[in-house]
Amino acid sequence: MPDREEPNARGLFGGVFARGGVDADDTAWLQAMLDTEAGLARALERAGLAPAGAGDAVTAAARAANFDPNELGGLAALTGNPVPGLARALARRVPQTAVSAVHRGATSQDIVDTAAMLLAKRAIGVMQADLVRVADAAAGLAAAHRATIMIGRTLLQQAVPVTFGLVAAGWLTSVDEARAGLDTVGPRLAVQFGGAAGTLASLGESGQRVATLLAEELGLAVPVLPWHTDRLRILDLGAALARVAAALGKIARDVTLLAQSEVGEVSEGAHQRGADQPGADQRGADQQAPAASPRRGGSSAMPHKRNPVASIAILGCSRQVPGLLATLTMATEQELQRAAGAWHAEWEPLTALLRLTGSASSWAADLLPGLVVDTSRMAANLAATKGLPLAEHVSSLLAGVLGGAQAHDLVAEAGARAVSAGLPLRDVLLSVPKLEERLSAAGITAEQIDSALEPSGYLGAADAFVASALDAHEALEVHHG
Amino acid sequence: MPDREEPNARGLFGGVFARGGVDADDTAWLQAMLDTEAGLARALERAGLAPAGAGDAVTAAARAANFDPNELGGLAALTGNPVPGLARALARRVPQTAVSAVHRGATSQDIVDTAAMLLAKRAIGVMQADLVRVADAAAGLAAAHRATIMIGRTLLQQAVPVTFGLVAAGWLTSVDEARAGLDTVGPRLAVQFGGAAGTLASLGESGQRVATLLAEELGLAVPVLPWHTDRLRILDLGAALARVAAALGKIARDVTLLAQSEVGEVSEGAHQRGADQPGADQRGADQQAPAASPRRGGSSAMPHKRNPVASIAILGCSRQVPGLLATLTMATEQELQRAAGAWHAEWEPLTALLRLTGSASSWAADLLPGLVVDTSRMAANLAATKGLPLAEHVSSLLAGVLGGAQAHDLVAEAGARAVSAGLPLRDVLLSVPKLEERLSAAGITAEQIDSALEPSGYLGAADAFVASALDAHEALEVHHG
Amino acid sequence: MPDREEPNARGLFGGVFARGGVDADDTAWLQAMLDTEAGLARALERAGLAPAGAGDAVTAAARAANFDPNELGGLAALTGNPVPGLARALARRVPQTAVSAVHRGATSQDIVDTAAMLLAKRAIGVMQADLVRVADAAAGLAAAHRATIMIGRTLLQQAVPVTFGLVAAGWLTSVDEARAGLDTVGPRLAVQFGGAAGTLASLGESGQRVATLLAEELGLAVPVLPWHTDRLRILDLGAALARVAAALGKIARDVTLLAQSEVGEVSEGAHQRGADQPGADQRGADQQAPAASPRRGGSSAMPHKRNPVASIAILGCSRQVPGLLATLTMATEQELQRAAGAWHAEWEPLTALLRLTGSASSWAADLLPGLVVDTSRMAANLAATKGLPLAEHVSSLLAGVLGGAQAHDLVAEAGARAVSAGLPLRDVLLSVPKLEERLSAAGITAEQIDSALEPSGYLGAADAFVASALDAHEALEVHHG
Amino acid sequence: MPDREEPNARGLFGGVFARGGVDADDTAWLQAMLDTEAGLARALERAGLAPAGAGDAVTAAARAANFDPNELGGLAALTGNPVPGLARALARRVPQTAVSAVHRGATSQDIVDTAAMLLAKRAIGVMQADLVRVADAAAGLAAAHRATIMIGRTLLQQAVPVTFGLVAAGWLTSVDEARAGLDTVGPRLAVQFGGAAGTLASLGESGQRVATLLAEELGLAVPVLPWHTDRLRILDLGAALARVAAALGKIARDVTLLAQSEVGEVSEGAHQRGADQPGADQRGADQQAPAASPRRGGSSAMPHKRNPVASIAILGCSRQVPGLLATLTMATEQELQRAAGAWHAEWEPLTALLRLTGSASSWAADLLPGLVVDTSRMAANLAATKGLPLAEHVSSLLAGVLGGAQAHDLVAEAGARAVSAGLPLRDVLLSVPKLEERLSAAGITAEQIDSALEPSGYLGAADAFVASALDAHEALEVHHG
Repeated sequence: MPDREEPNARGLFGGVFARGGVDADDTAWLQAMLDTEAGLARALERAGLAPAGAGDAVTAAARAANFDPNELGGLAALTGNPVPGLARALARRVPQTAVSAVHRGATSQDIVDTAAMLLAKRAIGVMQADLVRVADAAAGLAAAHRATIMIGRTLLQQAVPVTFGLVAAGWLTSVDEARAGLDTVGPRLAVQFGGAAGTLASLGESGQRVATLLAEELGLAVPVLPWHTDRLRILDLGAALARVAAALGKIARDVTLLAQSEVGEVSEGAHQRGADQPGADQRGADQQAPAASPRRGGSSAMPHKRNPVASIAILGCSRQVPGLLATLTMATEQELQRAAGAWHAEWEPLTALLRLTGSASSWAADLLPGLVVDTSRMAANLAATKGLPLAEHVSSLLAGVLGGAQAHDLVAEAGARAVSAGLPLRDVLLSVPKLEERLSAAGITAEQIDSALEPSGYLGAADAFVASALDAHEALEVHHG
Repeated sequence: MPDREEPNARGLFGGVFARGGVDADDTAWLQAMLDTEAGLARALERAGLAPAGAGDAVTAAARAANFDPNELGGLAALTGNPVPGLARALARRVPQTAVSAVHRGATSQDIVDTAAMLLAKRAIGVMQADLVRVADAAAGLAAAHRATIMIGRTLLQQAVPVTFGLVAAGWLTSVDEARAGLDTVGPRLAVQFGGAAGTLASLGESGQRVATLLAEELGLAVPVLPWHTDRLRILDLGAALARVAAALGKIARDVTLLAQSEVGEVSEGAHQRGADQPGADQRGADQQAPAASPRRGGSSAMPHKRNPVASIAILGCSRQVPGLLATLTMATEQELQRAAGAWHAEWEPLTALLRLTGSASSWAADLLPGLVVDTSRMAANLAATKGLPLAEHVSSLLAGVLGGAQAHDLVAEAGARAVSAGLPLRDVLLSVPKLEERLSAAGITAEQIDSALEPSGYLGAADAFVASALDAHEALEVHHG
Repeated sequence: MPDREEPNARGLFGGVFARGGVDADDTAWLQAMLDTEAGLARALERAGLAPAGAGDAVTAAARAANFDPNELGGLAALTGNPVPGLARALARRVPQTAVSAVHRGATSQDIVDTAAMLLAKRAIGVMQADLVRVADAAAGLAAAHRATIMIGRTLLQQAVPVTFGLVAAGWLTSVDEARAGLDTVGPRLAVQFGGAAGTLASLGESGQRVATLLAEELGLAVPVLPWHTDRLRILDLGAALARVAAALGKIARDVTLLAQSEVGEVSEGAHQRGADQPGADQRGADQQAPAASPRRGGSSAMPHKRNPVASIAILGCSRQVPGLLATLTMATEQELQRAAGAWHAEWEPLTALLRLTGSASSWAADLLPGLVVDTSRMAANLAATKGLPLAEHVSSLLAGVLGGAQAHDLVAEAGARAVSAGLPLRDVLLSVPKLEERLSAAGITAEQIDSALEPSGYLGAADAFVASALDAHEALEVHHG
Repeated sequence: MPDREEPNARGLFGGVFARGGVDADDTAWLQAMLDTEAGLARALERAGLAPAGAGDAVTAAARAANFDPNELGGLAALTGNPVPGLARALARRVPQTAVSAVHRGATSQDIVDTAAMLLAKRAIGVMQADLVRVADAAAGLAAAHRATIMIGRTLLQQAVPVTFGLVAAGWLTSVDEARAGLDTVGPRLAVQFGGAAGTLASLGESGQRVATLLAEELGLAVPVLPWHTDRLRILDLGAALARVAAALGKIARDVTLLAQSEVGEVSEGAHQRGADQPGADQRGADQQAPAASPRRGGSSAMPHKRNPVASIAILGCSRQVPGLLATLTMATEQELQRAAGAWHAEWEPLTALLRLTGSASSWAADLLPGLVVDTSRMAANLAATKGLPLAEHVSSLLAGVLGGAQAHDLVAEAGARAVSAGLPLRDVLLSVPKLEERLSAAGITAEQIDSALEPSGYLGAADAFVASALDAHEALEVHHG
């Protein structure tokens, strides 16, 4: 008989793939199915279709700890799903007077689908709490680093300057988009209640009324129709979760790249790597190996190594998402009044999506608040190409005097010389006789060149964009109240 | 030099996979990229960053017919995308005074991404027009067949009665959900304009203003930030298209199953299969082979065969969607300021998604309005199991008198006998001495049994659900104006 | 401390998705990792790099029951994988003299990857045993039904006659192809042993020697190189498993279609549906509800219903496979000497693939041996279209006399009349004056028409194909010894 | 009327996604279908089922240039595939005496599937030629750089030394594995020939004989059975192509990472970026813009930028593969004797897989032979962490004297100090009094420390692994003859 397990009882890979507060394991499924059966009993009682007290009696019995998932799983082999076994077992645990309120009017799919909606609703609540921490941290970085200049990198090559504030603003915007998507999916989480073939025939005239009461009891929406074989809301849920994974996966990829030994512009925070501030996940470790506990991401044999564990874990989660979403999408083609296989094929990928996006959110809520930013490495990396990222700016300065074509050619020549000689662009422009003469002739001063080579002068709308992202974030916060 | 091709010039498989009005081929892409460049020139002029007349001059030159996709494709091999070649070619076609307005401030990704948004916006418009025909046809079927009883089938087995009106209402609801999803994605179709690394540095203080004007010119939304490596809106678009495919694929699957030789409850319409009402697609065929033109879905060698070609084509389209959506989902992990590969990997699947969901929508707009419903086959199939689908109803009748357990056992026994003997359930109940006696003893009359065995009396909320679906459809129509 | 769980302890959905003998749960993973560590200790001892007895000492300690997956999972959050925690815990359980043999030379990925290979090898062995039962059953059906004529169905429409023997031969061939694919993947299951960056630096000159001994100890192949970031063998494994799912999914789809109420040509066997022959999976159910135990696939409320539970379960498994294979394929892009995320993203989908294809194999080994074939329904369905499936044959008979074009037109006309009038094709051909005259004039007798309308005369190579499939099956059996 | 198009006529994105010699466009498909029809006519003639000369007559007419893909595509809308229209059009182009040899015995799927096999066979031939260039180039790099030391990077962090030869050997091994996979799939490319429902009924006794002759004519294998709904060989083909993409995608990812501005250890070759050695792809560009032709991957505005265009293009191709393979895998579930949709859903993804893996192979054959290796940057990056990657080696040196635990602690302390002080590990070990004393006390000399810190002494089996990879490559070459 499983009781609600302690937070970390999630198995060998759960530390990576099932972190944080989202529950989508067998016990959570079992409880959600029982909650559905209990809600149905209460709804039936309210509709006058079950005796007074039946709702409470069923609710009292409907505790996961009273049932054995393994036994129910064995019975599921007879019918293809665990509900018939569960309904019988539940009926055996309620007083005789309440038996008629158990599972009345429902088909197995009503229970499984509604339970999935309950799991999703709960998971989304947990994720939203994590994601607000992620977004706030990103907003904090964006605000703090509006003036922190670094090199922008396109196609993994240094390009032109940006600010780290703008990078963080990009993270913020996508996380806020993901949060808004979770908001939107909420009203799509609807009760499933249609009976054997979607007519609720066994409830006679009372079907729609019971469905509405059931939705009320469970805090879910009322659908236009039973949706046994209209799976768009499953797809909506999958897509909303995939958006979370997409936003977090992009951040994690950026962190792994910026944290490379040769780049070194960010690293996962020290407070995240030691035994000094053990969160729930580390507790076991500490008790087990007080002395030899590794710092997170560290390797005593390779003391220079600071593995970005949180980012890697996020990527390990997010990269499983596309395939799972494909399975859900494929499974939308469901036959007639109940699908032979396609419905069944949804359960595991939906569970995995909830768990993995929940885990990624939890990791991200750890990652971003603790991110260490090395502004000196940013400055050094920007300087390493000796002015070349500003060539475009110099070119536009000269264009006003020389015309675009000449300006372009002159700077291109200077740039090529600078690359081949390993010299700063400034030195080439001001020291190579032929070039320097043309600049002088055009009335361009060394001060003007220096000014054009100053990265802070070539940031365009970067700061305005950061402001926009922060404004949008604030508006979302207000909306969330 | 390609001109806008005639509607059917879509190649060997285009009749199946590129039907209808959605354009997503090279010419459409080329024109959308040119429209973006032209819109940018006009926006620059409005912002005072390009000479008067430059906008018009670039717009005049920006016609796909002026450019050769193959040549641009060859050039794309130098840079990894076709925009640098296109921008140079466009610049050569405008007056010298307007050259400075070509591509100013933009990076290649700005043009490709914005063009993709334009393609999507146009495709969605076309799809919406097809889908309203699909939805209206489904609504018509739902209304016309509210009282047409048929057997519901779960797990591909006959279960309990439903109405064909309810089946059509299910199709209607999912198509309307898909339409609403396309509505929602509209505001997510935003201009992309960020320059080399997302700062619009080369436009100095004017970046955001030009971006806003560009969005105005093109009828697209203004994003909070350039979204070069925040791909959630691509995922949103992919998911909205996948919803369309999901809704249509489910309908097509139902039609292929209901049209099976042994079921025969629906068939694709005759007007869709002959040369008598040739649409655009059939024209070529007719001219080519006036006498021997095949009816659609027919086979002269197998005169009984009525292949559900439209449904098969829809499935041929819809089943490609999950994999393509997976690719877009995977591609959301984009590095730093521009992705090295992930961005490029989006172009083809996004194009395919637009084309395939467009084609499926066009097929569906042909399929549903012409669907032939055979109500006599529906009645015959319902009758074939001789009352067994109503066993549950009989059982509930008896339960009031005998109690649930006894009622269940009695009907179960009768059902088992009926199956093994091949007799109607009614005959077993009323003729097998032991059973008949128990019914008499309980005061159950033959009339009551007959009434319980009447399918029309066991439809529960079917009609009410149809009404709900029709109401929701009407509300969406009102919303769409 | 988990011990090897009893066979059914697989949770709420395990009865469907984790049936049969394949073990891929946490305990199986843990044991496989421990087996790898133990094999390494023995290999090191054999190579002279660990003291005598160290191999045995580590092997003795390396029992899953000695370790707690939840605790190791918690520790995994520090490093991103469970191996460092496991290696330390294992070291604490061996005598001091053997500590140096624990994990020496290895990196975490060596242990995880090699463990995955062990899991795969064991799973494949179990699957092969199930699949031979499936293939033998298909061969039995093919042999028994070489002369059982049924209608072939293309595009879900009745087409021309086939034999059920040929249908079963098709199933046989694909299952045998899947088995051969599992044979092929065997030699690809290689040990992983490369150390921190694939050089085995810490073992000096002995690296390759230890790798070879480790492979010997574990019964795995020796790879050319450590394959830390060359994941083709993971893809090979995934593809071989997907082939199993493909072969079984096709069979299951056919069974669900042929078992439809309106078709009724096959059904899942009675011995599979009752409590009379309970297998391991049913045992729990029987003990729990001896009297009210449902027959598998049955519904006492709907006594006509015979849900094809095994087929549905197979489809519920097989339809999860494409998305999981996509994830593994995507994960082949692994960075430099160890991937940051892509490697981690493999663990869960690989585990799921082993479990799901194992479960599908187990279900299929239950399904096919018990399949009930209803030859009278086959005959009745064939007769239902009243000779039309033989129109092509009649046409070819006439072509010899009338020429192809005339023959075609005559039969096409007769077919159209037969369809519209609901008459047998024979009657139309021999009774409609105009047609009958032309046949007489051509010297075609009624006997010849009758002969052409005899399905057994229009089976072409069906029997020869069955023979080929049986021969190929026998050859594979011989090969397997 | 399309003629074989010139090499670059592949549209707007073809320069990226359709590079090289693989033909999988409409014209190639059309020709392959015609080749199948022609082969069938010749086979029928050889079997005595068609008049003498019919084979040649059909073969002469069966040229793609004689047919219009757009018209056939329009006709395809009537039947769901282009073959019926093509067969009629072909029949109209042959002499009356040969008409009976056109399409005799065949069903549309026979032609489409066999054509797909022909396309695949040709594409594989082209790919193999490109891949041998890739493999030879990798072998060349492996051999040339056996002694080129660089830092190994795990989880995108510097770890311990490797050689660039070993990196290249890893690339070589995976490309050779991919090549071997293509070899293996060859015998799986079998003719499809089964007629309407897989019995070849219309050919009476001659079916298998004609199938065998057809296979001979086309150079394809003879399958055990027609495989209309056994799609394992499509999956095999998809998997073999995915392996190619996997091997090349990994290489491309490595190159993009090693080519990062901050790493700079490799770059795409200069000969690949200029106008000086224009290949087929560059020709158009040169003619168009002789003066302003961009170097590949370059940007005149950002002279420091060297975009790794070939690698990016490979990734743009390879990242589309997982989703496409998922679609093919999903499509293996095909109903009864011909699938309603699943078969159709194969055509486009299979075509795309051939094109994309072909394009990636062509790009790779350009990339690797021209790869520029910067050994001085490798040395500099290795030196940047000042000895820390060798800490493990020092630790093992000390362990012999101090014991493992003490050795570990001493080096860990030294490493931590080195990191925090930014000093070389050597200096800390030999200058910090407390540490130096302990080393002296243990009899460890500075020379020994220096030796342990020498990267070339800590390469383990790197060289032996390179030798193994080169040996395996040679063996494959011998096998290929």
